[in-house]
Amino acid sequence: MSRYVVGVDFGTLSGRAVVVDVADGIERGSAVHPYRHGAITERLPDGPSLPPDWALQDPADHREVLRVAVPAAVRAAGIDPAEVIGIGLDATSCTVLPSLADGTPLAELPELRDRPHAWPKLWKHHAAQRQADRINALARERAEPWLARYGGRVSAEWQLAKALQVLEEDPEVFRRAERWIETADWLVWRLCGRETRNVSAAGFKGLRQDGRYPSPKFLAALHPGLPDLLPKVDGPPAPLGARAGGLTPEAARWTGLPEGVAVAVGTIDAHVTAAAARSVAPGRMLAVLGTSTCLIMNSDTCHEVPGVCGVVEGGVTAGGWGYEAGQSGVGDIFAWYVERALPAPYADRARRLGVSPYELLDTLVAEQPVGGHGLLALDWHSGNRSVLMDHELSGVLVGLTLATRPEEIWRALLEATAFGARTVVEAFTAAGVPVDELTAAGGLTRSRLLLRSYADVLRRPLHVVDTEHPAALGAAIHAAVAAGAYPDVETASEAMGAAHRETWHPDPARAASYDELYAEYRALHDHFGRGGTKVLHHLRTLRNRALRR
Amino acid sequence: MSRYVVGVDFGTLSGRAVVVDVADGIERGSAVHPYRHGAITERLPDGPSLPPDWALQDPADHREVLRVAVPAAVRAAGIDPAEVIGIGLDATSCTVLPSLADGTPLAELPELRDRPHAWPKLWKHHAAQRQADRINALARERAEPWLARYGGRVSAEWQLAKALQVLEEDPEVFRRAERWIETADWLVWRLCGRETRNVSAAGFKGLRQDGRYPSPKFLAALHPGLPDLLPKVDGPPAPLGARAGGLTPEAARWTGLPEGVAVAVGTIDAHVTAAAARSVAPGRMLAVLGTSTCLIMNSDTCHEVPGVCGVVEGGVTAGGWGYEAGQSGVGDIFAWYVERALPAPYADRARRLGVSPYELLDTLVAEQPVGGHGLLALDWHSGNRSVLMDHELSGVLVGLTLATRPEEIWRALLEATAFGARTVVEAFTAAGVPVDELTAAGGLTRSRLLLRSYADVLRRPLHVVDTEHPAALGAAIHAAVAAGAYPDVETASEAMGAAHRETWHPDPARAASYDELYAEYRALHDHFGRGGTKVLHHLRTLRNRALRR
Repeated sequence: MSRYVVGVDFGTLSGRAVVVDVADGIERGSAVHPYRHGAITERLPDGPSLPPDWALQDPADHREVLRVAVPAAVRAAGIDPAEVIGIGLDATSCTVLPSLADGTPLAELPELRDRPHAWPKLWKHHAAQRQADRINALARERAEPWLARYGGRVSAEWQLAKALQVLEEDPEVFRRAERWIETADWLVWRLCGRETRNVSAAGFKGLRQDGRYPSPKFLAALHPGLPDLLPKVDGPPAPLGARAGGLTPEAARWTGLPEGVAVAVGTIDAHVTAAAARSVAPGRMLAVLGTSTCLIMNSDTCHEVPGVCGVVEGGVTAGGWGYEAGQSGVGDIFAWYVERALPAPYADRARRLGVSPYELLDTLVAEQPVGGHGLLALDWHSGNRSVLMDHELSGVLVGLTLATRPEEIWRALLEATAFGARTVVEAFTAAGVPVDELTAAGGLTRSRLLLRSYADVLRRPLHVVDTEHPAALGAAIHAAVAAGAYPDVETASEAMGAAHRETWHPDPARAASYDELYAEYRALHDHFGRGGTKVLHHLRTLRNRALRR
Repeated sequence: MSRYVVGVDFGTLSGRAVVVDVADGIERGSAVHPYRHGAITERLPDGPSLPPDWALQDPADHREVLRVAVPAAVRAAGIDPAEVIGIGLDATSCTVLPSLADGTPLAELPELRDRPHAWPKLWKHHAAQRQADRINALARERAEPWLARYGGRVSAEWQLAKALQVLEEDPEVFRRAERWIETADWLVWRLCGRETRNVSAAGFKGLRQDGRYPSPKFLAALHPGLPDLLPKVDGPPAPLGARAGGLTPEAARWTGLPEGVAVAVGTIDAHVTAAAARSVAPGRMLAVLGTSTCLIMNSDTCHEVPGVCGVVEGGVTAGGWGYEAGQSGVGDIFAWYVERALPAPYADRARRLGVSPYELLDTLVAEQPVGGHGLLALDWHSGNRSVLMDHELSGVLVGLTLATRPEEIWRALLEATAFGARTVVEAFTAAGVPVDELTAAGGLTRSRLLLRSYADVLRRPLHVVDTEHPAALGAAIHAAVAAGAYPDVETASEAMGAAHRETWHPDPARAASYDELYAEYRALHDHFGRGGTKVLHHLRTLRNRALRR
């Protein structure tokens, strides 16, 4: 008799569900459901406009994925729902929301609906940088022991900076929030009726280390009201791959799955992808190339890597030390370029040829020798996560001439993200955490030019995972473990993880040319990012002041 | 009885003729004729492709303007051609060509037609930077007395660097060239059958100072064959406003004008515009805002202004000391942006509204407070003329975010050119050459946002000349002087020059915000342009190496 698990991945703009075979991980069906409100960055639905750098989501959009995409995936698989033994899910992180004690999002209370701070803050909400700066300064001053676990700097994207922003800018919302919870944990709670806190997000995004959150004293020094955050986040910690509970009757109606089947503990999208990529063994680094890039690696030991986002015990699989690093903007820089800078004749040509603008641009510039465009970019349009951890940085493009063509700017942006990835890998190596193998997953693996460039820039073979839905597959693998079909995520990953679709090997000549460009990238990186000039911060300050007037 | 003069302006992409009344300078008719081959930057017509940074023109395109635009302007004016008493012309400069002793362009010899170096080199041909670097280094080493007259640095755009490039890269063309002549002088020669060398171009672009070109010894130290250039440029020097000769029968047939009417000595487009703008009195600076920007001013005295392109006796009017400074790329940066980065929805919207993309972009962003886009650009897409005189620089754009909109980049580019202009004006002031008044002419005066920004950034009133064809009007004024209708260009300029269409006054609040952005511009300018980093040069070197392979 066949047994199946369902994995659901909650991304930035849509959710997707897959149905996979417990025996071999083969996907039997899938469905995608775009969020009605996407990433909310300009104004609340029927509500006030938002300041710069805000990014919110609508919890109703998330529930809708459970109601629409899960049954659609089961139908597409053509299986009997009774054969499903578990469901697992992941979400972007840190995407965090305030709720009542029963899990009702504050954004759904009529009296708070028009208050931006009542809404879930999406991972790329970057308006809490001031708060993050103070957290960092104070943590350094007090030599907080957890700081080094985050490379010496915590992010404005994470739970604490976002919570402090709420407290300072809308204290009533902070007070009304009985829970302050990651979207993944909140969704698991919706499915099984029991609140859990997955150790991965609690550690990577909540600053929970060695079983403790930052101390009340530390929090009080930031703001007298901030220690009140602790009871709001203090849920039962849950290891990855564990069973959070059984599917409730209500969630069974939403999803069409049998009541009581295992619901796995929530996970972070990039981290759970390591299971799908068979990349959970120590030294195997996974690069999830999407809107942003996450670099995930397991290790036997705990090292503190400067500028790297985090190391968390049990953060990738129970028992290992999980490392996360990342680039704030990758795919969304490319999307920005195509939306805001692709000239009409290029859009027309792509349409005529029946290809995406991305494919057209790749094709037009793939044969140009390395450096032939004379351009260099800093990939900071969405700030910098690793290794600078500064979300008030912004993008830079140098070398423009009257001869510069769109596809050349395109390629320079693409290469900038490869240089950014190399910067991170070098930080790992320098800190004594060797990267033995590199595997790529995510939507950007569709671009052959990108994969080739990454292999050349990083000077190492790049494996590519053979699945369309890597995070959802990872969530399904966790579901299989939660349902008891495998003893642990490592074993399930070997059995159910995806094979390599292909491997890109670096070309020595291109790699040598990229070394020269990379040296210039690092020089620009340090000049603009490490205090050679404060122009990017100053421009942002002037912008914010101008727009406030 | 009415008397008329014809002015012809040879621009970068087209030529235009105007017919104006000698009494008051009122324009009676005009006609524009685009060059069939425009600026030749990719490949020779039916010939080989060109290396990067090349820009050529076709002499046949220039002659065609005389044949088509002049008669068309006379017809449009509805006057009797017998009432025309003179013709004057200007051209871009340094646009220079090799010819036989009778003026036949080498590009028109069948055996040389496929040789890029036989063609006229357009002002923005930037492939002789290596040669310019050596000229500068040697001139500094030998303390050549003329160097300071050019702000301490001569340009790759000028006659000597371009000639040295020909000599080194195609010695046969150099040898075959019996004359090496500015396009304006070559065209005057076509009209009156007599070769002249206007003192303005000879001084500003030919390094002729105090009656002498650089010495044979200096030239020989650059290349043993280079002293042979001297006899090729050694035409009779001719003051501005003088009569070069009378219209030949052949040229009378081309133009439809009476045989024997006065042909004025050739002029440089920007410089002759000073006459049209009534801007020839000392301390009145004229900014000709077009493809590139020229800043022109007359003075009673000779100062050496670091970084400023030139000071030439009689270079703007006979008897004064003419100053020229400039920005290599202005309108062509805007054109580049619209051609290569304007997204399809914007192009569609402009079409629907029946406005140009330029107007649409201006409108979308005009109300944004200064600094509201968070961007800053360096306007070096075509290199930098003043005050860095380095054509191997390239454009820079910093502060990009995922929220950056096209009209914001547009405005940042526009503002960058205003910051560039302020840099030049400050160099004049610092060198003891006061700028009392500032008048703008040229195609870019169509943009109200641009004019407003320049007034705000430069913190001074900006007058705008009320004529569609300022250079051609200036050439016509010179024709009136050559024909004897006025004693000198000063008098003719007062009688025939255009009035101010409008004057823009700076807004104190915007000007104060621009001061902050300008401080950042200057910091970036010095970092990228004065050795803080060599990244722009290095990227260009890598590009040229990559493309040569």
